[in-house]
Amino acid sequence: PGLTIGDTVPNLEVETTHGAIKLHDFIDTWTILFSHPGDFTPVCTTELGQMAAYAPEFAKRGVKLLGLSCDDVLSHVEWVKDIEAYTPGCKVSYPIIADPNRELIKQLNMVDPDEKDSSGHNVPSRALHIVGADKRIKLSFLYPASTGRNMDEVVRVLDSLETASKNKIATPANWKPGQDVVISPSVSDEEAKKMFPQGFKTVELPSNKGYLRFTNVDH
Amino acid sequence: PGLTIGDTVPNLEVETTHGAIKLHDFIDTWTILFSHPGDFTPVCTTELGQMAAYAPEFAKRGVKLLGLSCDDVLSHVEWVKDIEAYTPGCKVSYPIIADPNRELIKQLNMVDPDEKDSSGHNVPSRALHIVGADKRIKLSFLYPASTGRNMDEVVRVLDSLETASKNKIATPANWKPGQDVVISPSVSDEEAKKMFPQGFKTVELPSNKGYLRFTNVDH
Repeated sequence: PGLTIGDTVPNLEVETTHGAIKLHDFIDTWTILFSHPGDFTPVCTTELGQMAAYAPEFAKRGVKLLGLSCDDVLSHVEWVKDIEAYTPGCKVSYPIIADPNRELIKQLNMVDPDEKDSSGHNVPSRALHIVGADKRIKLSFLYPASTGRNMDEVVRVLDSLETASKNKIATPANWKPGQDVVISPSVSDEEAKKMFPQGFKTVELPSNKGYLRFTNVDH
Repeated sequence: PGLTIGDTVPNLEVETTHGAIKLHDFIDTWTILFSHPGDFTPVCTTELGQMAAYAPEFAKRGVKLLGLSCDDVLSHVEWVKDIEAYTPGCKVSYPIIADPNRELIKQLNMVDPDEKDSSGHNVPSRALHIVGADKRIKLSFLYPASTGRNMDEVVRVLDSLETASKNKIATPANWKPGQDVVISPSVSDEEAKKMFPQGFKTVELPSNKGYLRFTNVDH
């Protein structure tokens, strides 16, 4: 049970710092749904601050943010003051879901089996799901409580997902925006010539199978 | 069903390019178990090449690699020639599991629901699990077929996991080795003074809760 890549986010009604939200109404574009173990904890404070600091990057890409932890809305509101004080110039303008009864984290596969809060209750792991406008999960990072996420990697995979959704391409290992991409195996050389008038280069390999074809879609 | 963070990797006997392996015998240290959609496909070729290129980084950290795709061992062996030709100077010295009957990918939660091979069979997603010597999954990246992984992020989280396992610390958002880390909330200030003789700094926050404490464990 629980959510993984390819799954549809359930259309739950949730309480947030911005009022009640129906998840499917909110997710009408690329959305980052991310959970954290608890309010007033150290790594989470740095992470939510960085999510706010990167807000212009996410906005530029048409990406919405939606946080989640098990504390209640009042706690979230107080905690946001700490986050903003720690990350000067940043505003936490995205909603944070409250889940004081720990119902959502079970339904969303965001429970960390190794961590409990001081009352012995389950807490969410550092799950970060990138969800498409079709409400389906496209990519997930599941990190333990010990390891804060890397916003640059989040932005990198968003650029990969958006580029791949517009072209029949995929992005190679360690790709960064602007670098060459590979043409999907489902595209024949004939089709590729039409789809990529800028041209493409087939790598010569011992197998003589012409499957490794690079092009550039940013020029 | 399937594997996620906190789960124990089942002790399956698997066929690999290095012969039969019992998973629990192989996983006697930090191990990266990673799957890819198929042999002779473009992104995977760049990824397995990069895994080989980063082999010295993984070796330095005492980390083993174990690949997986559904093709058979003979296919893997032929494909490795392409990978090594594309990534000059690199040797694919880690084993690659074969799973021609698609049994393992189901048991390992590595099926991509959105991708099929040319015969209409399920293929694995780009799952990458970091497994501890206790055979449990500590961290997972689940990427779609379109998005190659980022080896620098894999190395970064390995450094975080190893640092956190040796000290009662966690690593903040965007952390890189050498930078300050945060002290776990389970450690009192009294204990922290003993555990971190190099000292630590508590950030002043509006809540006046002293939970955000930075120290450096590399000096």
